[in-house]
Amino acid sequence: MSATATTTDIFPQGDKGPADYFTGTAWIKILVPKDETGSYSVGNVVFEPKTRNNWHTHPAGQILLITEGKGYYQERGQSARLLSKGDVVVIPSNVEHWHGAAKDSRFVHVVITNLKDGSAATWLEPVTDQDYDALPTR
Amino acid sequence: MSATATTTDIFPQGDKGPADYFTGTAWIKILVPKDETGSYSVGNVVFEPKTRNNWHTHPAGQILLITEGKGYYQERGQSARLLSKGDVVVIPSNVEHWHGAAKDSRFVHVVITNLKDGSAATWLEPVTDQDYDALPTR
Repeated sequence: MSATATTTDIFPQGDKGPADYFTGTAWIKILVPKDETGSYSVGNVVFEPKTRNNWHTHPAGQILLITEGKGYYQERGQSARLLSKGDVVVIPSNVEHWHGAAKDSRFVHVVITNLKDGSAATWLEPVTDQDYDALPTR
Repeated sequence: MSATATTTDIFPQGDKGPADYFTGTAWIKILVPKDETGSYSVGNVVFEPKTRNNWHTHPAGQILLITEGKGYYQERGQSARLLSKGDVVVIPSNVEHWHGAAKDSRFVHVVITNLKDGSAATWLEPVTDQDYDALPTR
């Protein structure tokens, strides 16, 4: 268990996110590995403060449902979008982006990840500390 | 706003569920009408205590993510399953079932509804008061 896990969490914490494509500490719980049509998976991701995933793309898109905390979603070349509970992000296919927690808050979202030929994501380089530290906090 | 809505809600309350296929008061918020692959919609449903939907089927299945409260899921001919925060229900295609709130609790779930030829559900008869009142409360 993480020291910051609380009883307000909806889903079990799950397993630690791989260091290969997270900076910081994230927890991933797979809720449905593949729906009956084979179109998507469903999971829950918890980001500890300052934690974010690498830049990446999805071959068929992904949907984020923010359930707790504060965080960011940023597409390459665009300003970061500040996110909080109740926000929904529809990530188009093949758009380079990252998401993760604010500097002073955990961040929790459900992910619906569309699958294409068995692939869910293509991982790229980490978001640098320089870029992350420069993000606006409001 | 419903008198029982609270600030713990994750998503906006949305619109009142149609009396044609709800017994009691439900609130439906569509979050994503159709994902980019056209495979599914995403929404949030709030059931006030004692509220349930009619018996129904989904042509390509549905997934429920329970985020708050207590409720039921029942397939025809089976015992009702008691549900609470963090439970996930994978509803197979073409299985007659209903879901709804416990007698003494609101019940909130995200729904991922698979689409088939533009259809999301086939609605049948209401769950009778006799059947609902006979459900175990634990």
